[in-house]
Amino acid sequence: MGSRRPTDITLGVADILRPRGITFIHDTVNEVQPDALKVCTETSEYEYDYLVISTGPHLSCEEIPGLSPEQGFTHCTFTMEYAVKSKEAWNRLLEEPGPIVLGSTQMASCFGPYYELAFEMDHELRKRKMRHKVPITYLTSEPYVGHMGVGGLGKSKRFMEDEFAELDIKTVTNQSIDEITPDEIRLAGGGTLPFKLAMLAPPFKGVAGVAPLGNPRGFIPADNHYRHPDHANIYTIGVAMALAPPEPTPVPTGVPKTGFMTVRMAKAAAANIAADVQNIPPTYEKELSVVCLMDMGRTAALMVADPVLPPRQKSYLKKALWAKWAKIQFEKYFLWKMRHGYSRLP
Amino acid sequence: MGSRRPTDITLGVADILRPRGITFIHDTVNEVQPDALKVCTETSEYEYDYLVISTGPHLSCEEIPGLSPEQGFTHCTFTMEYAVKSKEAWNRLLEEPGPIVLGSTQMASCFGPYYELAFEMDHELRKRKMRHKVPITYLTSEPYVGHMGVGGLGKSKRFMEDEFAELDIKTVTNQSIDEITPDEIRLAGGGTLPFKLAMLAPPFKGVAGVAPLGNPRGFIPADNHYRHPDHANIYTIGVAMALAPPEPTPVPTGVPKTGFMTVRMAKAAAANIAADVQNIPPTYEKELSVVCLMDMGRTAALMVADPVLPPRQKSYLKKALWAKWAKIQFEKYFLWKMRHGYSRLP
Amino acid sequence: MGSRRPTDITLGVADILRPRGITFIHDTVNEVQPDALKVCTETSEYEYDYLVISTGPHLSCEEIPGLSPEQGFTHCTFTMEYAVKSKEAWNRLLEEPGPIVLGSTQMASCFGPYYELAFEMDHELRKRKMRHKVPITYLTSEPYVGHMGVGGLGKSKRFMEDEFAELDIKTVTNQSIDEITPDEIRLAGGGTLPFKLAMLAPPFKGVAGVAPLGNPRGFIPADNHYRHPDHANIYTIGVAMALAPPEPTPVPTGVPKTGFMTVRMAKAAAANIAADVQNIPPTYEKELSVVCLMDMGRTAALMVADPVLPPRQKSYLKKALWAKWAKIQFEKYFLWKMRHGYSRLP
Repeated sequence: MGSRRPTDITLGVADILRPRGITFIHDTVNEVQPDALKVCTETSEYEYDYLVISTGPHLSCEEIPGLSPEQGFTHCTFTMEYAVKSKEAWNRLLEEPGPIVLGSTQMASCFGPYYELAFEMDHELRKRKMRHKVPITYLTSEPYVGHMGVGGLGKSKRFMEDEFAELDIKTVTNQSIDEITPDEIRLAGGGTLPFKLAMLAPPFKGVAGVAPLGNPRGFIPADNHYRHPDHANIYTIGVAMALAPPEPTPVPTGVPKTGFMTVRMAKAAAANIAADVQNIPPTYEKELSVVCLMDMGRTAALMVADPVLPPRQKSYLKKALWAKWAKIQFEKYFLWKMRHGYSRLP
Repeated sequence: MGSRRPTDITLGVADILRPRGITFIHDTVNEVQPDALKVCTETSEYEYDYLVISTGPHLSCEEIPGLSPEQGFTHCTFTMEYAVKSKEAWNRLLEEPGPIVLGSTQMASCFGPYYELAFEMDHELRKRKMRHKVPITYLTSEPYVGHMGVGGLGKSKRFMEDEFAELDIKTVTNQSIDEITPDEIRLAGGGTLPFKLAMLAPPFKGVAGVAPLGNPRGFIPADNHYRHPDHANIYTIGVAMALAPPEPTPVPTGVPKTGFMTVRMAKAAAANIAADVQNIPPTYEKELSVVCLMDMGRTAALMVADPVLPPRQKSYLKKALWAKWAKIQFEKYFLWKMRHGYSRLP
Repeated sequence: MGSRRPTDITLGVADILRPRGITFIHDTVNEVQPDALKVCTETSEYEYDYLVISTGPHLSCEEIPGLSPEQGFTHCTFTMEYAVKSKEAWNRLLEEPGPIVLGSTQMASCFGPYYELAFEMDHELRKRKMRHKVPITYLTSEPYVGHMGVGGLGKSKRFMEDEFAELDIKTVTNQSIDEITPDEIRLAGGGTLPFKLAMLAPPFKGVAGVAPLGNPRGFIPADNHYRHPDHANIYTIGVAMALAPPEPTPVPTGVPKTGFMTVRMAKAAAANIAADVQNIPPTYEKELSVVCLMDMGRTAALMVADPVLPPRQKSYLKKALWAKWAKIQFEKYFLWKMRHGYSRLP
């Protein structure tokens, strides 16, 4: 919505890591040679004792004709460049209002941000007194709203249904997309959704350079200590890691791996590598839980899932004004922490 | 329920209008001759410079065999005569309790009053400690309860489902009626609903005398200034005006045009005629919103939809005791205002 | 869950009744001879002037292969012996966690206790921080959760759906069971549900010795005064009595007859017998209502249905902490009353 500029949320990673004695190299990986203990990039080669794969997703837009934000029919927020283009498309919509379609494609494994977008866009349009000129449709591969790739979270189904009903946001669930044209989304079932602005989370895949180490979609398998089952000195964390869904959905979806989860995986992998160096057994077990603050425009929602996938020992979902304040405060705290190179409170 | 007598809610229109220099003629229109600028009634002819068509609906009972309240199988409240007959039927039910079926037929375009009836009857029967002797079924052409001909209003679907569940009122939605016998409603799908008392909103049509100016169902089209697209000096307001539904429903339904909406249309049309007389452009655009106080027996609900059809800039639905007080107060205020010939606070 | 031992909730009936001049004989009935006014048991014969049949259910496990708790695949709580076996099975589950399936078979007519079990087990597993190791599925012949054999109770459908969603309890409704193996429930529709612990309410039938006086399933018919329509001196109360469901369900279910209802039936039958002895008309009409405190683990829910079957003059459903206290208090009061032979406050 324009509340943050790119410079507000970008970090000079190399400078932050240098004082810690860590060299940051920004390069594209061509190949990993696990037997030679080597990573080959476009410009050089690097030997390793331990390798941690935390590459994030490949946005697999090529799976759906017309999906790539390069073509400009639809938009997404998963890179800074795309996010900036999204903002320009949003500004055009404000000038020439029309239908918005947003949501997630088949094989997407990141649902939260598009729920946030729906709530934020609705809120912004109401502030501008033009919500009635912009029909909003939430289109998704999830079998129902509130599924979020994790089989729902407590009462999340009813919660999202109620919120969307209250806000006049239509939902089209359980859908696979065949093709996108400049002004229409064509669904596998035969329907079409016209749009003036479309924002869709693309299918996720593993990144090409490391994909040969992974499953058919290129995600890297990991044992209970975040270690590759075939290569004891390769670890994997975050979106790069393979995580089986709790149960198959009619239209395939992936399990989201949030920043919160990635940070915890990173700490666990680091501790386990340290243990391995000291020749003691790994101490951190894979135990995935998640805390999430979902922006809802004027408010936000706190979501807790422990473990991430059901059945859960603990789950929590609450919409509140304080959750919005908490989200803003956490953003400030987290960025301050990162900018100063702290991994925890100093 | 008998809380108002006919005299409580009827007005001597001719007497109220005379001091304002307005002649009230109560007559049946046979024909409008837009080129001759003439209205022909059963007893006379009237020339006009401007014509405002605000005829209300023709209750098209002939579309469903057995529906007419004249036959006495079912009842409705859309004329004083029918309302009085309804009260007699209600009194008979209180003496000989049995199943009630109420709701709206295909092509009805007035849903609110039958929701009110359901709530009021339930409330009255509980007060008399005989609710368990009277199964109540809400039968409707709406695709779901809370649709109300306008595609729902925020959370109205869940709201009505919950209220009806709480009150043991069964719902049969998305239905077209084939025929009505003295004790049974026969549905197009093959089912039947037995009843001791049936109250149904009939299909609505435009009134015969003005129908040739309108669409196939006799409703008069209007441009953004409530003006007939083909006849610049004919205006139309209220139920007489054609209003396309937000989207087709499986069983056809119409968009309700409430008294609130009609009053606003009337003011807009009047202002636009005044502008036309002065040869200045019309000032009032068609911008339909609605505020509604729905009686719910002991309580009432405030409903706001702006605009009437989704997507909306604003919608609101709340059940409260104060809404009941507001409804009663508004009735007193409105009738006082009308009786004294004020169109706004003096 | 082990919060009560068998001795906490068993009564020495013979000793309690003796001071009142009532002889208690514990024996199996072979036959009732209504014309000879005789009850033949396994060891003797008894003549009667009046007979009150209050035999409870025959747990008809033989209708579903593998269902009998004797075989040990599934468990139930309807006899002390089975309840004790259930506790042992529960203890095994706590040591070796795995999926729980619980609920009600076709023709069961007692649903409340299995809702309570679901809530109690969930609560206990969370207290032990192992809920995430135990998927819980509620399997039932009810057409929807919250039906409870009585067509629902106000908002009970949504209430149970919401509670179960919040607690991660899956529901499989509208099911008939074909067969049970040591680790799997096979559904009539073809699906299977694997389990580590299964607890199922079996189909209910009338008890063999009195069944010839009853309907095809052996339940005894009764007129409005709890009297057998063919035998004016035979009365029937409680689970033994035939009670038609409010409407047929896709998978057959029975109407529950709770302890609360049985006590009221007993008082009515006793008063009517007393009236008959005095040769005055019976005073108590059959008018079934129910008040129920459903355990929900940390809390409980108060449920009121008057009458038991819809439509109802009054229904109420509320979850609250005070309902849990009320349940515990009532248990103490009721057992104290029974132990001292009071049928009401002294």
